[in-house]
Amino acid sequence: MSQSEQRITISHGSGGRKSRELVEKLFQRYFSNPVLDRMDDSAVLELSPGRTAFTTDSFVVKPLFFDGGDIGRLAVCGTVNDLSVMGARPEAITVAFILEEGLDTGILERIVSSMSQAAEEAGVKVVAGDTKVVEKGMADGIYINTSGIGVLPHNTNIGGAMAKPGDVILINGAVGNHGASVITAREELGFKSTVKSDAAPLNHLIEEILQTTDRVHVMRDATRGGLATVLNEISLQSGVDIEVFENRIYIQDEVRGVCELLGFDPLYLANEGKIVVFVPEDTAEEVLQKMKKNRYGRDSCIIGRVVDNSIKPVVTLKTAGRGSRFLDMLAGEPLPRIC
Amino acid sequence: MSQSEQRITISHGSGGRKSRELVEKLFQRYFSNPVLDRMDDSAVLELSPGRTAFTTDSFVVKPLFFDGGDIGRLAVCGTVNDLSVMGARPEAITVAFILEEGLDTGILERIVSSMSQAAEEAGVKVVAGDTKVVEKGMADGIYINTSGIGVLPHNTNIGGAMAKPGDVILINGAVGNHGASVITAREELGFKSTVKSDAAPLNHLIEEILQTTDRVHVMRDATRGGLATVLNEISLQSGVDIEVFENRIYIQDEVRGVCELLGFDPLYLANEGKIVVFVPEDTAEEVLQKMKKNRYGRDSCIIGRVVDNSIKPVVTLKTAGRGSRFLDMLAGEPLPRIC
Repeated sequence: MSQSEQRITISHGSGGRKSRELVEKLFQRYFSNPVLDRMDDSAVLELSPGRTAFTTDSFVVKPLFFDGGDIGRLAVCGTVNDLSVMGARPEAITVAFILEEGLDTGILERIVSSMSQAAEEAGVKVVAGDTKVVEKGMADGIYINTSGIGVLPHNTNIGGAMAKPGDVILINGAVGNHGASVITAREELGFKSTVKSDAAPLNHLIEEILQTTDRVHVMRDATRGGLATVLNEISLQSGVDIEVFENRIYIQDEVRGVCELLGFDPLYLANEGKIVVFVPEDTAEEVLQKMKKNRYGRDSCIIGRVVDNSIKPVVTLKTAGRGSRFLDMLAGEPLPRIC
Repeated sequence: MSQSEQRITISHGSGGRKSRELVEKLFQRYFSNPVLDRMDDSAVLELSPGRTAFTTDSFVVKPLFFDGGDIGRLAVCGTVNDLSVMGARPEAITVAFILEEGLDTGILERIVSSMSQAAEEAGVKVVAGDTKVVEKGMADGIYINTSGIGVLPHNTNIGGAMAKPGDVILINGAVGNHGASVITAREELGFKSTVKSDAAPLNHLIEEILQTTDRVHVMRDATRGGLATVLNEISLQSGVDIEVFENRIYIQDEVRGVCELLGFDPLYLANEGKIVVFVPEDTAEEVLQKMKKNRYGRDSCIIGRVVDNSIKPVVTLKTAGRGSRFLDMLAGEPLPRIC
């Protein structure tokens, strides 16, 4: 962008000359590829053979930048992960921006650059996009939607309703980091911490798991509502009771500290680079070892199991002192705009 | 929704129990289908064979309701049309909402119901969705993103860069209606008009055109920036000079009236149900007759032609008095938040 255009104006969303400049000077510079560069109303793709996975997510995280990531990295990783957990290989994503008039174009460029890096790491192309601008006070800087398509080449049938008694539950590391990182980045709290968000594209890790076994029953990323909520969703969808062990769930000391100070339960904090994986017991150890070899799976562990089919499914947390309590779904909203 | 929940709260975007209620009680009620109802992280689809078209658009139109449509109808039709103009048959769309805390759930339901009707008319399924809620003052009621995938079953190679000298340019009716309708619906203007938005899903019309000829070179919907801007984009992408005739372009009297009063040029006003179609001259009449038979093509007409290849492509408007002037791309922004 030229020096004279340091801020987004309403004209950048007009669909006319200014919109075109923004696309050419910023978006194409970072996202360029032959499909996108055709600049037609739709991207046209030759997908690999297989079933197609399709997903969408909007991102409204506040603040835009936090330790370990930013809204752009989140937007790419979130959609890549939603495709991957279904067993799909992500092939293409779209990016739609809602920009607030007055947004610093330098901030926009940092975000776009971060998206481009995350897409590169995941190996997906941005094939189509859209930009709208709303008046000052009608958004909070920038909101991003990413949608994605992927192909299911494996003979997998993964889904929230596929958990079975006897399944072992694995997770690829510590929980609560993303939520704790975003909340400590909010200026109004006025304190610093060293907690880093775990935002990461997990498609390569997932590909490795699926190469190890074709018997993954459920895979899901534990985003909004945290580990506790995602386990409840699966328990409901599959109609099974689930049991997890508190002392097996890894929570970093810094995250624990933030939670104690602010009164949050880390099991309900959002993660942006954590998946739960449900596999039959006899393959769990092999999957675990494979996961530990990936950079995003070093702290992987087995945290629990599916106990039985149930008409009134519950998730039980076995506590350290040999007691236990029900782990409910997140009710209310401790942390708005966490992603 | 129950009587006690008349407004959207931050909890509806938490990913927890409240989000789930919103999905079950509202979105599933209107959008339900077997793929969506699985409620996994991605929809999994068996697409028809062919290349895949993929597109995205966010909608921030103000006001949310106007004569002839609303943000919901716009969001569905816009994405259906972006797929269709590439020659693709729309197969599935995703819907992502950004809701402002305090939004009346009755308004949300009207919008969702309108989306469901438009999707039904177009014959596409909503297969995945997302809901985020931002604090009061951080959005303007509701913003919607729709992304879509379609399949190119025809042996078509349609695109903005495919216009050729000798091509005849058709359009399926009057221009400027959408822009004029939205602007007169803005309360601050304080006047009433009878202008109706043309928002419509054009996939069936387009399918009929493609059954008539496999020689469509360019097809594009004339949305933001209007007819003038879309012709300029095509002229640039294809490297051709374009000539259109002012007296062939149909502008309804009411639209002309609004434009004269407010100082707009109808050729730059957004349309949400108009496509330009470039075909070789020898097939133009046949295509025209076919278009006229569709409910969204009754006022179709031939408005111009591609003159020649050009290094500095221009669009020329032949005026009624045998004069002519250059028709430039929209510069600046006469009408923010028109879609």
